[in-house]
Amino acid sequence: MEKYRGLSPAQFFHRNKEIAGFSNPARALYQTVRELVENSLDATETHGLLPDISVEISLDSNNPDRVTVKVADNGIGIPIHEVPNVFGRVFYGSKYVVRQTRGVFGLGVKMAVLYAQMTTAQPIYVKSAPINSDFIGEYLLYIDIDKNIPHVLKMRIRKKENPKLHGTVVKLTLEGSWVQAKKRIEEYIRRTALIAPYATIRYKTPEEELVFKRVSKKLPEPPQVGRYHPKGVDVEVLKEIIKTVRDPDTTLMDFLVKSFDGVGEKTAQDFLHWAGFDPSIKVKELRLHDLEALASKMKSFNKWRRPRPTTLSPIGEELLKEGVKNILRPSFVKAVTRPPSSYSGHPFIVEVAVAYGGEIPPQDQPIVLRFANKMPLLYDEGVDVSRKVVDEIDWSVYKVKFPAPLAVITHLCSTKIPFKGVGKEAIADVPEVEHELEIAIREASRRLRAYITRMERLHEIQRKEAIIRRYMPEVISAISEVASLDPSILEKKLEEILKRELGKKGVEQYVK
Amino acid sequence: MEKYRGLSPAQFFHRNKEIAGFSNPARALYQTVRELVENSLDATETHGLLPDISVEISLDSNNPDRVTVKVADNGIGIPIHEVPNVFGRVFYGSKYVVRQTRGVFGLGVKMAVLYAQMTTAQPIYVKSAPINSDFIGEYLLYIDIDKNIPHVLKMRIRKKENPKLHGTVVKLTLEGSWVQAKKRIEEYIRRTALIAPYATIRYKTPEEELVFKRVSKKLPEPPQVGRYHPKGVDVEVLKEIIKTVRDPDTTLMDFLVKSFDGVGEKTAQDFLHWAGFDPSIKVKELRLHDLEALASKMKSFNKWRRPRPTTLSPIGEELLKEGVKNILRPSFVKAVTRPPSSYSGHPFIVEVAVAYGGEIPPQDQPIVLRFANKMPLLYDEGVDVSRKVVDEIDWSVYKVKFPAPLAVITHLCSTKIPFKGVGKEAIADVPEVEHELEIAIREASRRLRAYITRMERLHEIQRKEAIIRRYMPEVISAISEVASLDPSILEKKLEEILKRELGKKGVEQYVK
Repeated sequence: MEKYRGLSPAQFFHRNKEIAGFSNPARALYQTVRELVENSLDATETHGLLPDISVEISLDSNNPDRVTVKVADNGIGIPIHEVPNVFGRVFYGSKYVVRQTRGVFGLGVKMAVLYAQMTTAQPIYVKSAPINSDFIGEYLLYIDIDKNIPHVLKMRIRKKENPKLHGTVVKLTLEGSWVQAKKRIEEYIRRTALIAPYATIRYKTPEEELVFKRVSKKLPEPPQVGRYHPKGVDVEVLKEIIKTVRDPDTTLMDFLVKSFDGVGEKTAQDFLHWAGFDPSIKVKELRLHDLEALASKMKSFNKWRRPRPTTLSPIGEELLKEGVKNILRPSFVKAVTRPPSSYSGHPFIVEVAVAYGGEIPPQDQPIVLRFANKMPLLYDEGVDVSRKVVDEIDWSVYKVKFPAPLAVITHLCSTKIPFKGVGKEAIADVPEVEHELEIAIREASRRLRAYITRMERLHEIQRKEAIIRRYMPEVISAISEVASLDPSILEKKLEEILKRELGKKGVEQYVK
Repeated sequence: MEKYRGLSPAQFFHRNKEIAGFSNPARALYQTVRELVENSLDATETHGLLPDISVEISLDSNNPDRVTVKVADNGIGIPIHEVPNVFGRVFYGSKYVVRQTRGVFGLGVKMAVLYAQMTTAQPIYVKSAPINSDFIGEYLLYIDIDKNIPHVLKMRIRKKENPKLHGTVVKLTLEGSWVQAKKRIEEYIRRTALIAPYATIRYKTPEEELVFKRVSKKLPEPPQVGRYHPKGVDVEVLKEIIKTVRDPDTTLMDFLVKSFDGVGEKTAQDFLHWAGFDPSIKVKELRLHDLEALASKMKSFNKWRRPRPTTLSPIGEELLKEGVKNILRPSFVKAVTRPPSSYSGHPFIVEVAVAYGGEIPPQDQPIVLRFANKMPLLYDEGVDVSRKVVDEIDWSVYKVKFPAPLAVITHLCSTKIPFKGVGKEAIADVPEVEHELEIAIREASRRLRAYITRMERLHEIQRKEAIIRRYMPEVISAISEVASLDPSILEKKLEEILKRELGKKGVEQYVK
């Protein structure tokens, strides 16, 4: 006889922790650090604050597999009454809106809490000092897994001594393998510094203390909360949006214009005419099969304006270049930020940098550094769209001969990154994204080709120069004897000719 | 101001359908077929019934993107009162136990229902005729996404005309891209027939009707529901198991012996002594920090018996070989079923077949066909542990020269397949699994090496024979002239010598 039962979301993810990236003690430690750092970045730069983040990892002196992770930031904090749900309830959060953030699932930090409590039975410590509040809240809590609700062990609220102070501190202790995880975690912190060069990150481990100082105080324009684009809805989303309409007399026409992104009166009229809907019908009176037809027509109409990119926050060519230079120290770098595009109603922007030479180690294929909404992606590269696009490019077209010191940095920003899993590691090959990536990489690579061409020419010139210089003394002495000229004047003249003819100055401008 | 909110599991997966494999109309159609077929196989063979499954795909004549999928089986059926939750509530099911099944997440078919209702606003039709019941139930239902509960539109219960009839029929209509999906779906059905050669699968599409008849009536031993292994528990699991203990006086000793797999009195005593626990302490009186210590000690104790494989159901070398022969038609195949092993307290068995020649198309690298709990895995091969192991093998050791007609079939059975995502496509590289895969592939490949060696020898012999035969008539006529012998007797004698010396009969046995 089969036994049937339901699971709470917390029970589900407790049983299936590996699908959220918590597959073993090393990976769980990595994922914990990552989730906390990403929450801190979301709490700062998404709200226009220059991030100041401190990450501290310490080991239990009696048991080195008990690892404590502490992350502190200067972000907006979490409203004190929301802290228990934000840390203690799976599928709860502030990021279920149309806006570019690192977090989206409302899952990551809860997985860290779950993992801590299932391996060390320790609760999580949270201190929140919300911006524009006079108070600080401190909590010790864990998750009641059966019910998927927070269980608060201790709570303390006190007045801020400095009312201007704000931010969050999170501390938890889990079973983790520091020895196995530390390389990845450091790589993660390094790449975070690359993609967020306006952040200062202090990183303290049992062995060392690194400080990644901001190289720029220029914060990208923060993303705004937007509305759904008509191409991105389905019947269920339509129902949900209609529920939020207050006025029972709202017409379909008004509904379209007021509730969606990129729909003006003219577009709405054109659409309704094309789709065969009466603009004056009341939206609350639409039946299920009307909604199905409406959703389907909205999806296939091709004249909506593109989704507005105000919900996005790319880092921009200049900052991207700064970040790449600072971390990879190449001899060439070209960054490209593409204009906004969209897939299924979700706006997105692709940014790419191609870096070459300098301290980049030569490899048999291009190194790919992937980022999504400013998060470094370190795992599952083999199934990521960026790897696919990079592999499909014939690099000999750009004069790259492998092994070559070539790195391709890709960054996708979107209100909805098409991740392949809740662990947020690989991006699916959505055709629109693939297309934009290819254009961006090719654009940057054309500059690389020009650079390599010039470097080849330079090497050719240097070779010629070396040959000429080898024979110059003999030529000078021969000519000076035959023509009775002063050898030193002759040498100076010849040197001038050499410089002019080899065009050395002209080449120098391309070499850093 | 940030707005905080919670999502129901249905809302969560509605928003993030791509993480369950429903990323676009082609993939969604594939995933729908797959989830339904796998449920049907679980409902039959897991319960000792020879599967008879029919899959029917039809297109709306007015709109070819509206696809109806109907799957019928002769399984045990679903208890009539459970049907609404099984199809209409995310995280609900009968497979949250320690046993090998295809389904485990309680998510797949609900995703199909969600996808259908969000794209076509159509409810799902379910007919269930449970085994050992006199009734048949029919439902039309959809999911109330906000609340994650089933919403039943129509229900009808009637008496069975034939009381022996049992099984389930499911039908739903979704937006799907048949043109793009059909190759993958057919491949999926084909591979399912390979790994379940005791199943008959009827597959009807708008273009054709295929019947994969069972090639064997031998059903592998069905898996049994087991208990947790002590190595596989954490504090939360311990708490959960202790909750189910009825007798308040149960001692820790009794608890270990009665509640876990692979723990006899002797082992329990040894463990408790080693871990420093009092065997007579009452398990209900253990405190949280005792439980933490207990769980941690249970994990690190190295003398538990291995988990028992009765919860597993491998297909076995013979059936695997049958399946491979039937679908790939190679000239050589060797199947290996490894003895049971375990990782983190989860039992698993690795099965591998290596096939060569025949109708396998030569490729630059081995073709890898992956299976997990008898499910074909078609996507994300690049990050799967099987691909990794196959790629790390130096095939020249086994005399394989690429391009070669080589296929490696891998099958992992476990009560807990370490999938990388809820879409169930790629398996993580758990070291224990990796190790077993390598041993199995190498074992099968040694036989392949012997086969290739013999084939090479055969070719050599055939070459020699051809040469000898070319000159035989002249030799015969010369000898018969010189020795005055009858050429026909001489020819017969020489033929006998030729056969014996070339050992042709000895070679023939290796060639099919």
